[in-house]
Amino acid sequence: MNTLGQLLTLTTFGESHGPAIGGVLDGFPAGIAVDLDYVRECMQRRRPGQSTVTTGRQEKDEVEFLSGLLDGVSTGAPIAFIIRNNDQHSSDYDELKDLFRPSHADYAWEQRYGIRDWRGGGRSSARVTAPICVAGALATLAMRKFIPALDITAFTSQIGPYCTNPSNDMDYTTAMAESNAVRCPDSDLAAKMEEYIHELRKEQDSTGGCVTCIVRGLPAGIGNPVFDKLEASLAKAMLGINAAKGFEYGDGFESASQRGSQHNDAFCMENGQVSTRTNHSGGIQGGISNGQPIRFRVAFKPTPTIGQEQNTVTRDGKETVMAAKGRHDPCVVPRAVPVVESLTALILLDQYLSSK
Amino acid sequence: MNTLGQLLTLTTFGESHGPAIGGVLDGFPAGIAVDLDYVRECMQRRRPGQSTVTTGRQEKDEVEFLSGLLDGVSTGAPIAFIIRNNDQHSSDYDELKDLFRPSHADYAWEQRYGIRDWRGGGRSSARVTAPICVAGALATLAMRKFIPALDITAFTSQIGPYCTNPSNDMDYTTAMAESNAVRCPDSDLAAKMEEYIHELRKEQDSTGGCVTCIVRGLPAGIGNPVFDKLEASLAKAMLGINAAKGFEYGDGFESASQRGSQHNDAFCMENGQVSTRTNHSGGIQGGISNGQPIRFRVAFKPTPTIGQEQNTVTRDGKETVMAAKGRHDPCVVPRAVPVVESLTALILLDQYLSSK
Amino acid sequence: MNTLGQLLTLTTFGESHGPAIGGVLDGFPAGIAVDLDYVRECMQRRRPGQSTVTTGRQEKDEVEFLSGLLDGVSTGAPIAFIIRNNDQHSSDYDELKDLFRPSHADYAWEQRYGIRDWRGGGRSSARVTAPICVAGALATLAMRKFIPALDITAFTSQIGPYCTNPSNDMDYTTAMAESNAVRCPDSDLAAKMEEYIHELRKEQDSTGGCVTCIVRGLPAGIGNPVFDKLEASLAKAMLGINAAKGFEYGDGFESASQRGSQHNDAFCMENGQVSTRTNHSGGIQGGISNGQPIRFRVAFKPTPTIGQEQNTVTRDGKETVMAAKGRHDPCVVPRAVPVVESLTALILLDQYLSSK
Amino acid sequence: MNTLGQLLTLTTFGESHGPAIGGVLDGFPAGIAVDLDYVRECMQRRRPGQSTVTTGRQEKDEVEFLSGLLDGVSTGAPIAFIIRNNDQHSSDYDELKDLFRPSHADYAWEQRYGIRDWRGGGRSSARVTAPICVAGALATLAMRKFIPALDITAFTSQIGPYCTNPSNDMDYTTAMAESNAVRCPDSDLAAKMEEYIHELRKEQDSTGGCVTCIVRGLPAGIGNPVFDKLEASLAKAMLGINAAKGFEYGDGFESASQRGSQHNDAFCMENGQVSTRTNHSGGIQGGISNGQPIRFRVAFKPTPTIGQEQNTVTRDGKETVMAAKGRHDPCVVPRAVPVVESLTALILLDQYLSSK
Repeated sequence: MNTLGQLLTLTTFGESHGPAIGGVLDGFPAGIAVDLDYVRECMQRRRPGQSTVTTGRQEKDEVEFLSGLLDGVSTGAPIAFIIRNNDQHSSDYDELKDLFRPSHADYAWEQRYGIRDWRGGGRSSARVTAPICVAGALATLAMRKFIPALDITAFTSQIGPYCTNPSNDMDYTTAMAESNAVRCPDSDLAAKMEEYIHELRKEQDSTGGCVTCIVRGLPAGIGNPVFDKLEASLAKAMLGINAAKGFEYGDGFESASQRGSQHNDAFCMENGQVSTRTNHSGGIQGGISNGQPIRFRVAFKPTPTIGQEQNTVTRDGKETVMAAKGRHDPCVVPRAVPVVESLTALILLDQYLSSK
Repeated sequence: MNTLGQLLTLTTFGESHGPAIGGVLDGFPAGIAVDLDYVRECMQRRRPGQSTVTTGRQEKDEVEFLSGLLDGVSTGAPIAFIIRNNDQHSSDYDELKDLFRPSHADYAWEQRYGIRDWRGGGRSSARVTAPICVAGALATLAMRKFIPALDITAFTSQIGPYCTNPSNDMDYTTAMAESNAVRCPDSDLAAKMEEYIHELRKEQDSTGGCVTCIVRGLPAGIGNPVFDKLEASLAKAMLGINAAKGFEYGDGFESASQRGSQHNDAFCMENGQVSTRTNHSGGIQGGISNGQPIRFRVAFKPTPTIGQEQNTVTRDGKETVMAAKGRHDPCVVPRAVPVVESLTALILLDQYLSSK
Repeated sequence: MNTLGQLLTLTTFGESHGPAIGGVLDGFPAGIAVDLDYVRECMQRRRPGQSTVTTGRQEKDEVEFLSGLLDGVSTGAPIAFIIRNNDQHSSDYDELKDLFRPSHADYAWEQRYGIRDWRGGGRSSARVTAPICVAGALATLAMRKFIPALDITAFTSQIGPYCTNPSNDMDYTTAMAESNAVRCPDSDLAAKMEEYIHELRKEQDSTGGCVTCIVRGLPAGIGNPVFDKLEASLAKAMLGINAAKGFEYGDGFESASQRGSQHNDAFCMENGQVSTRTNHSGGIQGGISNGQPIRFRVAFKPTPTIGQEQNTVTRDGKETVMAAKGRHDPCVVPRAVPVVESLTALILLDQYLSSK
Repeated sequence: MNTLGQLLTLTTFGESHGPAIGGVLDGFPAGIAVDLDYVRECMQRRRPGQSTVTTGRQEKDEVEFLSGLLDGVSTGAPIAFIIRNNDQHSSDYDELKDLFRPSHADYAWEQRYGIRDWRGGGRSSARVTAPICVAGALATLAMRKFIPALDITAFTSQIGPYCTNPSNDMDYTTAMAESNAVRCPDSDLAAKMEEYIHELRKEQDSTGGCVTCIVRGLPAGIGNPVFDKLEASLAKAMLGINAAKGFEYGDGFESASQRGSQHNDAFCMENGQVSTRTNHSGGIQGGISNGQPIRFRVAFKPTPTIGQEQNTVTRDGKETVMAAKGRHDPCVVPRAVPVVESLTALILLDQYLSSK
């Protein structure tokens, strides 16, 4: 099902080259003032064509709200919105009708449904993340009303061989990440990443990377035990992003080589509040926030669309060779940053509403 | 909510030191013969007290089926089952009533609900994974009926500093994993892991580790696009296991440093079937199986309960020092192996039913 | 939540006087050819302004499909559609901003959400049934493909004092119902109903009525026991229609005065098939279809909007008197007929998919 | 699925002649003191063998709680409970293995699942309502804590030809209903009903009837618009009870013959509060409570099991004749009264939690 969440649900729809994409956000609290400029700004961050490191596709990405708002305030009714698709070069994709692009969803989708919208990846296009950014902006506005101190900051922490140092994670800000085209808060590293992407573009190749997300200000007691754990819900949301290959929180995979005496976060009192001296746990214990910053990381594979020749097969079972034409990003990671933030806001609001 | 799945749902219940734990498996197909010996065997694999590397707690873990079966065959009605708790040393936990154990769910749970079953971790105990193994055994029996060639094999791929080589993943079998107490299919490495765990037990410490899972024989076309992706559902299920800190599939976090030309899986024809030359994708593309083996890895943190002294705070906000008494595993990873397999079977059956 | 169904879900959105209303139909089977003329025709049947017995509001009700179709065939992706609101006389409603209309949802909504879209009833307007008719048309097309013999026929069986004879239920056809403005298959009765409605319009009053629905051709074995029973799901869907006050199936409330020897449907063999001699049960037993025609009835209250003066109160708690201006139906029942059919098709397809 | 509710979910399990029946109540608020004597009392009301008008089957119906309570207080964890089946005369049912009882679920279930637990109706037995009463008692305790003034009173309003006068509905109390074996608050009528049932027992026949339910003290603003309306959720729950054939609220089917000027409930001010002069609406408008008493009625068909000879068919398609042996009620209505109250409490708590 194309729906995320339990109490707050986002249902998205739309294909890359259909008339429009969009979403319905239901269960959104009434009485939240929706700043449309803020929503547009969030949309812009995901939009392609922003800089030299992203695809040249120019999407205007103008969002139209169809319901659920009265004079800019949410009424408790479902909030539906659409974004028209308008810069489509469908003819770029004509030759894809009858073959399967390597490491794309083409073949798997056709086996699942027996039919496939081959134009630009159809429903499996990264364009489906645009409605997530609209809904995420709304969720952020609601969370800020309920918890003014809340801050969600995601940034590019790895592109190819270039990685930020996790011990600096807590020092990075959105402003630092937004200061460059790759959204890496370490400006020296950002320059290297940019250069690397330009090089790959010339080589008609692509690269993977990671996004790190830090949530500050979330009080203890938000989440659910057992199956709908906060970390499990975040993992599901993040693995739902196109090209995501992994999720870890706190010390993540590093925990596997640690000892308990090293990993455990000792409790202490701080200004009359229960706190912990370290945060190897990443702010969540047993599915529920413990009041420390939430910290997690999402891995993305290299963009599968590359200009180099690749072996593949046709729909009628013949081996062939293809090379992608059209416009495509050598690296989706910078554009995934706002998507990670948006999904985080949606999951947090959903879990917050169920924890009241 | 304590429910996993969409069409096939598992609702679990029970606390470590309450009368019983158990589950209700609903949406299970009618007409499946349930081999109770097989179910018991699956339970035994998770059970503590099996070897010198696990906790000395002796749970008989006898499962009683209450409904949904007629002469050993499923009827389509919900299958409920319970496992009585019978080797409880609740007095071991008396002192935990009024303090929060570091890196346990105690504090977070109490902030969430205002009340906490402090006996043995209550609902946050790893004991809640026992019903998952019962349900997983049933799901495996159903999947074997629908897809006889299906094989789900999980094994310990890391304990502390000792890691298997991922390039051998496809050679390992359940028999190899089950041949030793740590469930590592590489016997030399297994010996080192066992020794390491014994050493940690003496030092009153614990260690983390990883479980790798391989699914062979799943046809292409099982799964769902966008939010309920096969990989996203697996991630959510795995992050729901106690102590899990990360999930990755295919090349996972390694993908972040790869190039597209290196990561992409070229399609080819093999015996008249569409196949791929490599499997960096881990058998899933766009949320749907592509017919190649599914491969994923789950990271677990070190057991938080250790015998060493740790700083913590009391419920009334005083700093104090504690050292765990009672019985506990220095490493939960070997016992997580059957839980990973069980959850995999449950998710695959759920997605299979929704993909028909 | 604004979502109906389990496997096949319809999420609707939109207010009477917002930019648009619409829906997202998810879980719809792939490979169904969608005849847009048929969908438009279904829409037209619900549309106001069709005859002298309905409101003069002229809605063009043109549906635009945004996703999920490729060359007119469903792809398995969610099908989103919108209907623009374009004949709005919002100024008709200005005076309603600050008072609560008797027997409308105004007061209850404002108590629930603290804010209310007062323009034309907002989200509580009967206009929200238009997207149901679009989705119902699609569900009908899918059911006809899966079960070609299936026929869903609803008709007006009561308006005010005029009732059809239930013993004729099985003789009525859609053609007979569509032959007059009130959709009553008994043409003599239809004439009296029309006259009655004209009379009420003059008296600035309104009337209630009933819709009966007959489903022929549904095989035995569709449905679910216990909570998600076929009859329970139909009841929920029908009580979701604006102004619905009751639901009964088979002999319904008449059963309360019957004896078992009179109500029971004896089984018999008919052309080698299990059948029943009577159908007091209305085609469903224990939540599951038994192969006999499904028969149920839905009661609707009189339109609450009337031109006569009524006592009411203002938002700031003062008693006052109001008389509705604007356009409104003295009887919604004829327009509810296609809504009942649409919801029936949606529930049947959902239960069919879960019974496979 | 065997689950009722959205935020508060009740999953039931168990067959009439299996080891046990029971349920899991999830989403139940933490911190509610559970008076076990009260729960037992609620169970007793549903239990058969209470009086001469019900079946002679003696079920002890002792409920065992397995989880979710600590020292009698709810912890937020799922509350599981079981009731052992112990007065089973399975041999009474031996001859039912190979034939279908008229107007029972036997045939429909077998068509749905291909297999059927024929012992005492299996999962389709009215015994499945016992867990509903346990969960309903818990929901009632929670609602009384949140809304102390809340009162839910159901009673028998019709048995065969004997009906209470709806204009007296608001005067009846639980004490009046509980004063006689048929649970009819009008004692003269109750005597006639009892006599009628005794007569039917002699004639080896059965009768249908109605239960009316009144909810007082529910504030305005509880419920949801569109699909998950309060009335729609109540309808679904009530139609889920064995033998239920209809649901109506407020003036129900009577509304169909009314005029708007007659049905509309004019608002007025009463002690500084918005109120209505009449309550034809039955306390709900647009899916949301309006602060007036909620009033609805549920119709039940005659018990299908009767001692008279009936025509039916065998599983292998031969016409035959059967007469029920064993113990059975000539009228289930008095025992349905606590089930109606229980489901009302469950739905109200669920909608209350989602309306906060």
